Amino acid sequence: MAENNLKARRRSDYAFFLPYRTRWSDNDQYSHINNSIYYHLFDSIVNTYLIEHCGLQPNKSPLIGLVVSSFCQFFVPLSFPQVLDLGLRVNKLGTSSVTYEVGVFEEGKDAPAAVGGYTHVFVESQSRKSMAMGAETKAGLQKIFAGTTRVDAKM
Amino acid sequence: MAENNLKARRRSDYAFFLPYRTRWSDNDQYSHINNSIYYHLFDSIVNTYLIEHCGLQPNKSPLIGLVVSSFCQFFVPLSFPQVLDLGLRVNKLGTSSVTYEVGVFEEGKDAPAAVGGYTHVFVESQSRKSMAMGAETKAGLQKIFAGTTRVDAKM
Amino acid sequence: MAENNLKARRRSDYAFFLPYRTRWSDNDQYSHINNSIYYHLFDSIVNTYLIEHCGLQPNKSPLIGLVVSSFCQFFVPLSFPQVLDLGLRVNKLGTSSVTYEVGVFEEGKDAPAAVGGYTHVFVESQSRKSMAMGAETKAGLQKIFAGTTRVDAKM
Amino acid sequence: MAENNLKARRRSDYAFFLPYRTRWSDNDQYSHINNSIYYHLFDSIVNTYLIEHCGLQPNKSPLIGLVVSSFCQFFVPLSFPQVLDLGLRVNKLGTSSVTYEVGVFEEGKDAPAAVGGYTHVFVESQSRKSMAMGAETKAGLQKIFAGTTRVDAKM
Repeated sequence: MAENNLKARRRSDYAFFLPYRTRWSDNDQYSHINNSIYYHLFDSIVNTYLIEHCGLQPNKSPLIGLVVSSFCQFFVPLSFPQVLDLGLRVNKLGTSSVTYEVGVFEEGKDAPAAVGGYTHVFVESQSRKSMAMGAETKAGLQKIFAGTTRVDAKM
Repeated sequence: MAENNLKARRRSDYAFFLPYRTRWSDNDQYSHINNSIYYHLFDSIVNTYLIEHCGLQPNKSPLIGLVVSSFCQFFVPLSFPQVLDLGLRVNKLGTSSVTYEVGVFEEGKDAPAAVGGYTHVFVESQSRKSMAMGAETKAGLQKIFAGTTRVDAKM
Repeated sequence: MAENNLKARRRSDYAFFLPYRTRWSDNDQYSHINNSIYYHLFDSIVNTYLIEHCGLQPNKSPLIGLVVSSFCQFFVPLSFPQVLDLGLRVNKLGTSSVTYEVGVFEEGKDAPAAVGGYTHVFVESQSRKSMAMGAETKAGLQKIFAGTTRVDAKM
Repeated sequence: MAENNLKARRRSDYAFFLPYRTRWSDNDQYSHINNSIYYHLFDSIVNTYLIEHCGLQPNKSPLIGLVVSSFCQFFVPLSFPQVLDLGLRVNKLGTSSVTYEVGVFEEGKDAPAAVGGYTHVFVESQSRKSMAMGAETKAGLQKIFAGTTRVDAKM
C-alpha cells in the first residue's frame, strides 16, 4: 500500500480494538501526544493480543517476539486527556515473523489520526535465534490477518 | 495518617475514579509495573480532574499546579496487561496549594495495590510565583476533599 | 538508500554526536532497550541540535517542528546500563521540512545497533500551519546535511 | 532529617555520582522535567550501582530489590536539554532492606534541585519472599552508607 493510502484506512480495516486512556506525560511541551508514545501504544495492543489470543506468557514462553523494524505516519495531532481507540491487523504472516499494523483513532472518528506498525521476528527466548512460531500463535494471528489486502507498507 | 494505615484504604475512601489500561513498557525487567509509572498515573488522574472539573486549560490558564513533593507506598505488585482503577481524593486544601492522594486498585479488589500522592502549589504560569487558586479550582477540589479525615500522610 | 543498506552505516556517516546514558526503565521485560525508547532518543538529539545550533526556543519560537513520519530498523539488542552514542545527519532539506537520520551506536563499536529517523514539518506554533523555516534553522541543518549521499530511506 | 533540611544537602553529602542527559519527552507541557521522571532517574543510578558495585545481574541473581516506598521533594525546576548530575547515598542498611537517597543537581550547582529516594526490600526472584541480602551486595552498599548521619527522612 502506498504511503499516502494509509491515511485512507478506516475502522473497518482493523480486526481487534482496545481503548487507551492517554496520560499527562504523553503530551510533550508542544502540548500534543509525543510521537514516541504511539510506539508504546503499538507495543501494548500487540502484546495484549499475543497474551490474550495467542497464548504468549512473556516470562515463560519459549519464543518471544523481537521488533526488527517499525514505522508510523502521523495525520492528526492528539492530546491528553483524550481516550484513543487502537485497531490492530496483521499485514504479513510468515513462518517466524509477523508484520502488524495499528490504526490510532479519536473517539467517534472513522479516519485514523495515525497509522503505524512493526515487524516481530519470533526468537527462542534464551538464545535469541529465530524460530518458527507455534501453532497457537499462528492461529491467533491468522484471525486478524488482512489476507486479501495487498500490502507494501513502508517497513 | 500513619504509614501502615494507608494499606487500610478502601475504594470508598476515594471520590473520583478512572480506569487506566497498562502498557507493555510499564513493566520493567522484573515483569511488574515499574515504581515510576505510578507517578505518571497520579499525574494523569489529577490533571484529568483539574481539566474536567476545575476549569484548568494547561496552555491557557493563568495558574498552573507545580508538584513540590510526592510519595508512594507499594503493597501488591501489578503487571501489564492489567487494567487498573485509580481513585482520587484531596487530603489538604489550602489557599494556593492542594495535597492529593491516589489509590491504585486491581479490578475487583477493594484493598489498594498502592497508595501515593503529591502536593501541588499553584503558580502564575509565566513568573512561576505562587498565587491563590481561583474559585472554580477551589470549588472543584472541595468536592473531593476528604475533610473529615485527619491526615498527616508522609509528604 | 535501500533498506538493508542502513545496516552498513558507520560513525563517519554522521555529523553530530551525543552520548546518552540508558535508564533502568528503558529495558522492557525482555531485558533489552524497548523499541519505543529509540524514538525518545531520536527526539532528544534532534531537538538538542535544533536548540543549540539552529536557534530553536521551544516555548518562544514562532515555528516548531512537527513529526509527520518516523521509522527505525533494529540490528543489535541493547541493554541498560549501557551508554549509547547517537549520531545525527540530515538526509533531506526542503523549504519547510527536514528529514533526519539517527544512528545508535554501542560504545567502541563502529557499526550501528539501530538506524532510524523522522521528518519534521515546520509549522507556525499557534495555527500549526506549515511555514518556510527561518534562515538560522536552515543554516544549522545545512551543516549536517549529507548532501552527497543519495537517499531513499523508508520514511 | 526533617523535611526542610533535605534542601540543605550538598554534593559532598553523596558518595556516588553519574551524569544523566535529559530527554525531549522528559519535559511535560509545562516545559519542565516532569515529576515522574525523577523516579526513573533514581531507579537508574540505584540499579547501575547495584550492577556495577554489588554484583547484581538483574536476570540471573537469586535476589532482586523491590521498591516498597518512594518519595521526592522538588526545589528548583529543571528542563531539557540540561545534563543532570545524580548523587547516591544509603541512609539505612538492614538485613534484607536498604533505603537510598538521591540528590539531583544542575551542572555547576552545589545545592540540589530535588532530593528523593526509595526503600528496596530484597526478595527471592521467583517466590518474591524477602531474604537477607548477600555479602557482596551488603559490602557494596556499605561503601556509600552515610552511617554517621542521623536520618529520619520521610519514607
